[in-house]
Amino acid sequence: MSALPAPPSQTMSSVVCCIDDLERSALARLDKNTNGYYNAGADAEQTLKENVTAYQRYRLRPRALVDISHVDLTQTVLGHRVSMPIGVAPSAMQKLAHPDGECANARAAEAMGTIYTLSTISTSSIEEVAAAAPKAVKWFQLYVLKNRDMTQRMVERAERAGFSALVLTVDAQMFGKRLADVRNGFKLPPHLSLANFDEEYKKNVKGSVEQSSGISHFVTSQFDPSLCWTDLAWLRSITKLPVLVKGIMTPEDALLAAEHGAGGVIVSNHGGRQLDGCLAAVDALRPVVAALAGRLPVFMDGGVRRGTDVIKALALGAQMVFVGRPMLWGLAYDGQRGAQLALTLLRDELRLAMGLCGEQLTALGREG
Amino acid sequence: MSALPAPPSQTMSSVVCCIDDLERSALARLDKNTNGYYNAGADAEQTLKENVTAYQRYRLRPRALVDISHVDLTQTVLGHRVSMPIGVAPSAMQKLAHPDGECANARAAEAMGTIYTLSTISTSSIEEVAAAAPKAVKWFQLYVLKNRDMTQRMVERAERAGFSALVLTVDAQMFGKRLADVRNGFKLPPHLSLANFDEEYKKNVKGSVEQSSGISHFVTSQFDPSLCWTDLAWLRSITKLPVLVKGIMTPEDALLAAEHGAGGVIVSNHGGRQLDGCLAAVDALRPVVAALAGRLPVFMDGGVRRGTDVIKALALGAQMVFVGRPMLWGLAYDGQRGAQLALTLLRDELRLAMGLCGEQLTALGREG
Amino acid sequence: MSALPAPPSQTMSSVVCCIDDLERSALARLDKNTNGYYNAGADAEQTLKENVTAYQRYRLRPRALVDISHVDLTQTVLGHRVSMPIGVAPSAMQKLAHPDGECANARAAEAMGTIYTLSTISTSSIEEVAAAAPKAVKWFQLYVLKNRDMTQRMVERAERAGFSALVLTVDAQMFGKRLADVRNGFKLPPHLSLANFDEEYKKNVKGSVEQSSGISHFVTSQFDPSLCWTDLAWLRSITKLPVLVKGIMTPEDALLAAEHGAGGVIVSNHGGRQLDGCLAAVDALRPVVAALAGRLPVFMDGGVRRGTDVIKALALGAQMVFVGRPMLWGLAYDGQRGAQLALTLLRDELRLAMGLCGEQLTALGREG
Amino acid sequence: MSALPAPPSQTMSSVVCCIDDLERSALARLDKNTNGYYNAGADAEQTLKENVTAYQRYRLRPRALVDISHVDLTQTVLGHRVSMPIGVAPSAMQKLAHPDGECANARAAEAMGTIYTLSTISTSSIEEVAAAAPKAVKWFQLYVLKNRDMTQRMVERAERAGFSALVLTVDAQMFGKRLADVRNGFKLPPHLSLANFDEEYKKNVKGSVEQSSGISHFVTSQFDPSLCWTDLAWLRSITKLPVLVKGIMTPEDALLAAEHGAGGVIVSNHGGRQLDGCLAAVDALRPVVAALAGRLPVFMDGGVRRGTDVIKALALGAQMVFVGRPMLWGLAYDGQRGAQLALTLLRDELRLAMGLCGEQLTALGREG
Ligand SMILES: Cc1cc2nc3c(=O)[nH]c(=O)nc-3n(C[C@H](O)[C@H](O)[C@H](O)COP(=O)(O)O)c2cc1C
Ligand SMILES: Cc1cc2nc3c(=O)[nH]c(=O)nc-3n(C[C@H](O)[C@H](O)[C@H](O)COP(=O)(O)O)c2cc1C
Ligand SMILES: Cc1cc2nc3c(=O)[nH]c(=O)nc-3n(C[C@H](O)[C@H](O)[C@H](O)COP(=O)(O)O)c2cc1C
Ligand SMILES: Cc1cc2nc3c(=O)[nH]c(=O)nc-3n(C[C@H](O)[C@H](O)[C@H](O)COP(=O)(O)O)c2cc1C
Repeated sequence: MSALPAPPSQTMSSVVCCIDDLERSALARLDKNTNGYYNAGADAEQTLKENVTAYQRYRLRPRALVDISHVDLTQTVLGHRVSMPIGVAPSAMQKLAHPDGECANARAAEAMGTIYTLSTISTSSIEEVAAAAPKAVKWFQLYVLKNRDMTQRMVERAERAGFSALVLTVDAQMFGKRLADVRNGFKLPPHLSLANFDEEYKKNVKGSVEQSSGISHFVTSQFDPSLCWTDLAWLRSITKLPVLVKGIMTPEDALLAAEHGAGGVIVSNHGGRQLDGCLAAVDALRPVVAALAGRLPVFMDGGVRRGTDVIKALALGAQMVFVGRPMLWGLAYDGQRGAQLALTLLRDELRLAMGLCGEQLTALGREG
Repeated sequence: MSALPAPPSQTMSSVVCCIDDLERSALARLDKNTNGYYNAGADAEQTLKENVTAYQRYRLRPRALVDISHVDLTQTVLGHRVSMPIGVAPSAMQKLAHPDGECANARAAEAMGTIYTLSTISTSSIEEVAAAAPKAVKWFQLYVLKNRDMTQRMVERAERAGFSALVLTVDAQMFGKRLADVRNGFKLPPHLSLANFDEEYKKNVKGSVEQSSGISHFVTSQFDPSLCWTDLAWLRSITKLPVLVKGIMTPEDALLAAEHGAGGVIVSNHGGRQLDGCLAAVDALRPVVAALAGRLPVFMDGGVRRGTDVIKALALGAQMVFVGRPMLWGLAYDGQRGAQLALTLLRDELRLAMGLCGEQLTALGREG
Repeated sequence: MSALPAPPSQTMSSVVCCIDDLERSALARLDKNTNGYYNAGADAEQTLKENVTAYQRYRLRPRALVDISHVDLTQTVLGHRVSMPIGVAPSAMQKLAHPDGECANARAAEAMGTIYTLSTISTSSIEEVAAAAPKAVKWFQLYVLKNRDMTQRMVERAERAGFSALVLTVDAQMFGKRLADVRNGFKLPPHLSLANFDEEYKKNVKGSVEQSSGISHFVTSQFDPSLCWTDLAWLRSITKLPVLVKGIMTPEDALLAAEHGAGGVIVSNHGGRQLDGCLAAVDALRPVVAALAGRLPVFMDGGVRRGTDVIKALALGAQMVFVGRPMLWGLAYDGQRGAQLALTLLRDELRLAMGLCGEQLTALGREG
Repeated sequence: MSALPAPPSQTMSSVVCCIDDLERSALARLDKNTNGYYNAGADAEQTLKENVTAYQRYRLRPRALVDISHVDLTQTVLGHRVSMPIGVAPSAMQKLAHPDGECANARAAEAMGTIYTLSTISTSSIEEVAAAAPKAVKWFQLYVLKNRDMTQRMVERAERAGFSALVLTVDAQMFGKRLADVRNGFKLPPHLSLANFDEEYKKNVKGSVEQSSGISHFVTSQFDPSLCWTDLAWLRSITKLPVLVKGIMTPEDALLAAEHGAGGVIVSNHGGRQLDGCLAAVDALRPVVAALAGRLPVFMDGGVRRGTDVIKALALGAQMVFVGRPMLWGLAYDGQRGAQLALTLLRDELRLAMGLCGEQLTALGREG
């Protein structure tokens, strides 16, 4: 087991051995509004729960007597070398978890040698994150706004700041109904702001973004619900970066992504926060991989909490998985050290699971 | 999110964000007898529960990058324009929920632009409801009595009062065994009466309807257990209104309905109140739709509690769904405003789910 | 609802509306030893539980608009007219439930017009039961003893006393391991005795039957573990009565029963008291019915608690079902009146379920 | 029921009727560290639980009217006669359960006429165990160390001491992540030691084996992760004993074992302690048996807690099952007498289940 950074308090109960421990710890540290915002899923939260539990329906078939003295987790992803097939998914407003927010998270990814994805609606700006983690492989997650100028400016800034791919999120043109946020009247606290939006732009929407009516109203008012496949051409016309389409859940859409020039797809249901009752993320993987048949790299996120989850996603054809909430729980636990702990736990568990499977990923069944 | 009518009391816990909240609220407001009558199912209540949970076995497959800036929920149903594919199912004795009873419920449907179905055994009369909601699309639900004269008079009154369809309920020729009602000795309180029955008629059965031996005995004694398909011809001979057959659960019966000149079928198991252990309503939908192959419009009710339930029923081939208990819970919560709140919540959730599915209803799987 | 016999005490909580109520009531009335003996199943009690829950996996498909004014439950079984397809299964030592024991139970069956099956190891004798319920259709359940003379004497007595069939139980040549009985050290109380055994015979085994080492040791020592199909020929040679084979769970054995001249088979796993982990009784029905293809009548017992359970068993091909524990709970509740109440509840529920299914038993699906 | 050895205390609650009772009892007797070490599984403990519950998905089909007066459980296994198809699986450090440790366990197996398997990392030495149970059929479980000399010495000692087979464990080249052990900081108490390791050898690793950093670090440092199929040839070259490969979970590896000269395979997932999320042990049995088609004997362990579990494994093609934790619970309960009680309970349950199945093992279905 690798050395763990010392937890904030050294009592027995605070020892963190797995992501579940980080989750429990974060629950105790964060306020009700932040816990609601971070952990909630849409409506009845069926998909939120199934994202996590669906992995249990796949069974690993361990292979024996394979030399596993050198389990290798490194990957080449869109031309960049990464230390493991586990990256950081974009999640909004990370300063709610820790004052160092996105910068701490990005530094954790940098230290671990993996990819950090920055959200459009982050509380640290594109430039701040680039400065904080200059050597990290960084991707920028894009929400296309009704205001295309503002959208284009963000893309250009990300490209300029050294981000190496765009992640176009396509499952949030309307905003999921998360009951915890509705009940809590969730809004960004006054000392935080959406750092990627120009002062100019923000002045107009300030009332709605950072004050009473909250994030839901902001999205409804700013995001472009008319976005469609042809807009991918526009996006590709304004950037040289590869565009990954995030939020693909069907083989039909995976093929459309390939046809419209995407650089890859990320199978994701937004962590169960958007359409409740849709497939679990891991269950959507196999048909997408089969349809694409290698035309595009396939990534995924949703519900990854253990090394054995990662290995199952890889065996189903994902090149790499991304984790959302575990990084937020890590941040809440201990800033960059906590975020790094989350990645360390998953990496060590993955290496172990790889070894115990005899490094064979082809063998995998699904059970009752 | 649309503006919600203010709830009766403004404490935090009374905020209603979804139908489950309305249910909880009604449970606290209504007396034991009414709660028993409204919420119970037959026998072991397996079907009652499965009506609600069966939706979870269907998985939505969200489609991405579709222009969803104009999600349109309007429908033309039997020649009438309605604002959404969600209507009000017939349920008996609505004054138990609120003094305004059926009239409030009908006005809610009118305000929302959808269909109201009045029960034969309502506590407001056909004429009162017609006067209260003159512009609503109104259907009259018919129980055929042994006394065919009385039955015919009701049909004629409904037609005269502007109701535009008859809903012939065929799953209650005997009365389901609901343990809560048996235990509570459920009966209509003295200040309420079955308003569609003539004074003359009621005098004879008064003892049993509104006094001690309760609704079960009334049904047993008044409803006609010999009713069969040929009676549909009789019914069509006394009215010009289209006759929808409510309580169809098999493709065989759907075809019989078509052969006997029904104007449509309503897939329903009476909210799990009649034959326990029968199929969940939503599970009966696909075979019925397949058998009819478009010969008749197919409607359904049973267990609809969320927008995603509606979308699943639509994807399985229903033209429109109806809700029973949610309207009663809404009435109990705040009369017409509460009933309207129920419809508003469902409509907004449906619109959102439609958007997040890219308005594609064909894609739907059923899982383990 | 039919008039119920008044329960022993008239408090609200003692009102019995279904078999579950009888079960609860009996649990409170009987001592630990008797409750253990009556209610336990073998080992982990998986089969005990599944016998009851397996019915839920079958779904009824209600048929509409059938004239159900005359639902007829009568049957002709082995040449005798019975009022309904629900009879009384053999169960040992019924005086543990009520001083009137087997006689009360048999009188209840007589009053309801159905079949009573008397166990070999009853606390009332063949002759006493015959005298108590002279008009009942009575069957005698036989355990074949190592001592064939004693066995033959019982058969002859039953024939002489007017019993009209023998029920040969074939699933208890060894005695199931019921943990409750092992823990309680279950034995027959001193004031009761196994009434069908001659004084002569009992003198020899008295120590083990009615004293400390209990029923398990008695069975092990007296029952014949070498019993096999050829013994059926012997049994048929000493009686003119038809021999039903009770405890058939496979189509293979059903065919062997037909080949060896059985008069019918009773699909049963002894109420989950013998081989834990075997099929639920209702799940064994369809293959047996299919294999026999009408060559022999098929009966069943195990887990019947509601009218809808009965209808499912009938739809799967049983001609009649039998109930074990419900009768014991009824006896414990109120002697003959309680036993009659159990049969009344089931009959009324069956008639209702038949009506709500449109009296069509062919339509039945099995779900997830 | 066979006579049980008297339990340590004679209160009612301490009566042990089945393995579950032994488990409960051990839980109360052992300290937290030992309970953690003995009972934990890897990670989320899905496989730990499924090893036990998977048996419930198989249904026994009892056959009737077979002469079962002489149920025979004896077996010939690798040329040795054993009294029943239930043996003792290797488990480390049995002195944690009882001061008599491995010797008591081996004597229990000897008394019951079955096989004892001694772990490499035992707290009694090969020679001590051989002396304690000279007549037992004894197998030696081998972990191949990086230090091949030390490994070879152990093999030679086992052969010399009269062990009749080697059990090569192939599922622990890396050490499973058992959260209880991580949290408890599990280590061997100072008065115990790994008895098979020479003083010389132990001096070098003492710090890690028997002190603070615990067993996990020892395994990581001593066991050889490069072990592969060709090493089986090496092992066979240094011993005349047959080599059974333990930890086979796939038909692919079963065939590799046959090709590389194994004397048999043991289907096992190490009691759910290594790769969480892999198949339940009993579920892996059928494909392995089918692939081998009789070329090698197939044994299994994992989750056996009842006689009906054994019969299911036999019906799926295992020649014999082994039990791990039940023996440790037995030891904790009452040393050799407790271990013998565990084997007695299982043997008696198996004999009964065999009888109730009519000694037919071919008939077996798998359900829902
Ligand atoms: C609090 C939170 C905020 C998120 N914000 C964004 C976002 O701004 N953009 C985006 O594309 N996805 C966002 N996501 C979705 C994540 O990128 C990812 O799909 C999801 O969290 C994966 O599931 P997991 O949390 O179970 O790992 C967010 C998720 C969470 C939990
Ligand atoms: C309290 C109550 C009374 C009902 N009364 C009638 C009725 O008079 N006529 C009728 O056709 N259906 C009646 N129903 C059935 C409903 O029309 C509808 O089938 C059912 O409520 C749909 O299920 P839901 O409550 O889960 O939405 C009643 C349902 C309830 C809950
Ligand atoms: C307390 C008890 C005693 C029983 N004794 C006998 C018996 O003596 N002979 C027999 O063939 N079956 C006996 N049975 C089994 C029943 O005939 C029948 O198979 C079983 O009770 C049916 O299941 P149910 O109790 O769920 O209705 C007994 C069952 C119980 C519960
Ligand atoms: C505490 C403990 C220690 C074990 N140590 C070993 C071991 O040293 N070598 C080995 O091959 N298997 C070991 N095993 C695995 C067992 O041999 C066996 O595979 C497993 O216990 C079977 O599952 P069961 O405990 O459910 O019967 C151990 C198991 C336990 C519970």
